[in-house]
Amino acid sequence: MRLVRYNGGRIGLVKGTDVFDVSAVVGAGEGDWPSVEMNRLIRNFTTLRPQLENLAATAMPIPLASVKLETPVPWPNKLMAYPVNYHDHATEMKSTGFANVQGYFLKASSSLCGAGDQVVLPKLVNREIHHECELAVVIGKECRNISVDNALDHVFGYACLMDMTIRGKEERVFRKSYDTFTPVGPWIVTADEVGDPTQLDMKLWINGELRQHANTRDLIVGIREMIALASTASTLYPGDLIATGTPAGVGPMVAGDIVTIEIEKVGRMSLPVVQGDIGSNFVFDRTVKESA
Amino acid sequence: MRLVRYNGGRIGLVKGTDVFDVSAVVGAGEGDWPSVEMNRLIRNFTTLRPQLENLAATAMPIPLASVKLETPVPWPNKLMAYPVNYHDHATEMKSTGFANVQGYFLKASSSLCGAGDQVVLPKLVNREIHHECELAVVIGKECRNISVDNALDHVFGYACLMDMTIRGKEERVFRKSYDTFTPVGPWIVTADEVGDPTQLDMKLWINGELRQHANTRDLIVGIREMIALASTASTLYPGDLIATGTPAGVGPMVAGDIVTIEIEKVGRMSLPVVQGDIGSNFVFDRTVKESA
Repeated sequence: MRLVRYNGGRIGLVKGTDVFDVSAVVGAGEGDWPSVEMNRLIRNFTTLRPQLENLAATAMPIPLASVKLETPVPWPNKLMAYPVNYHDHATEMKSTGFANVQGYFLKASSSLCGAGDQVVLPKLVNREIHHECELAVVIGKECRNISVDNALDHVFGYACLMDMTIRGKEERVFRKSYDTFTPVGPWIVTADEVGDPTQLDMKLWINGELRQHANTRDLIVGIREMIALASTASTLYPGDLIATGTPAGVGPMVAGDIVTIEIEKVGRMSLPVVQGDIGSNFVFDRTVKESA
Repeated sequence: MRLVRYNGGRIGLVKGTDVFDVSAVVGAGEGDWPSVEMNRLIRNFTTLRPQLENLAATAMPIPLASVKLETPVPWPNKLMAYPVNYHDHATEMKSTGFANVQGYFLKASSSLCGAGDQVVLPKLVNREIHHECELAVVIGKECRNISVDNALDHVFGYACLMDMTIRGKEERVFRKSYDTFTPVGPWIVTADEVGDPTQLDMKLWINGELRQHANTRDLIVGIREMIALASTASTLYPGDLIATGTPAGVGPMVAGDIVTIEIEKVGRMSLPVVQGDIGSNFVFDRTVKESA
């Protein structure tokens, strides 16, 4: 099943090139703030699945191309991410801060955006803002301290995720948490449609030119291990997201670029990159002053 | 006004040594998951305030000592924290990673607990777990890119916050995000009752022995500046929390300790420290193996 959030928090099932509105099953799209209907749908999915399928079977098809796709889980308990988790990326960054010696970090949930949004570059002087191509794991069940062997039982599904990053020496979380810096989408594909997540090909293009190409088989800390590791420290909740790390090929984006991600069995989405007029501050201005 | 969350998500006003149940105003305590009623109360506080006061005026008093106090905002959009933000703490840690050159980091929302909870130490070998004494700022209004001068207009209130931390070289977020590592409480005091937050005395004791004593006037990045800086990068939402950094005097806690925090005009709370039997993993075991 492919689940989208669209047009102001509505929830739909995607079949082919159409969306079927199933918002009524969880009261989505009625303007409630914060929007936690997808978290609830994920938590109660086993019970709700027949209702979702029945409603979709009778709903009017809406062309997918006609709706604005939003980020599937806008208000997760946490948006976790693993650092340096491919050897080729470690080499290009000259980094030894591998995921298996660091553990997870977090990105702000407010940095999430969807396939129908734009990536807005903050107005910073002399800074590169890079694309990172990643698979998102969507947690399905509340859990703590689960084993590697049982980890995939706690996965609801998968999505494409771009981890946008200001390069520099400041706190990693701050460099990665600007609004629109975490596009997730275009939908969540439920785990049953993906099968084995440890052999997924993923690609990222800028303006049609391939920049990143990897396979989840090359992860340093694998998908099962990332979930189990996070759960040693933290209770994981339905809707929690794990960004699994980027392979080599990261590089700068500039206004006017189109950034496209595709992950095998998961999906594909393209977002335009635009220049914003805010975002500077004394943390990122500092380097400019010191080098002036 | 002092707002508590207690006994399974109920919301109450505290007057003296009593709680007055105002859950009905926002439908709190009815078992909804995730619990976002306090976020909604904060967002609509100006409108809801008369209803809260009227309901509290007619409610039966419940002795504060008889309820289990829970963390006031269990599902914020983000729990931000500023690193090294007092010069004396920088000196004791031999750190130059000041808040004004780093920006904010995040702690997992799942690490939040309340005044009625226990701090559970993970089972780690040869690791110190330290207390850090901090003021929490609770955001009241959605905002982005606000000025330092207007920052306090976006504050809902304040609370005491302890930032528990495993010392080590691993990712800071991971070392600080274990369950129960962020006690917040005992309540939120609304900003009008605190007045100027830049002159607040704060203290932390272990078993009655004073370990940390500071005043918010000594912050490197001040309260207004922390809010404005976070908002250059991220949209802030009602219920977002900012942990403002710890002064000198951090040190290890062990099972059996009682840790107490008190902040002038805000409140005081004590939590027992207990030893848990989970939490180990290959990230924190690594040091043991390497030194063996």
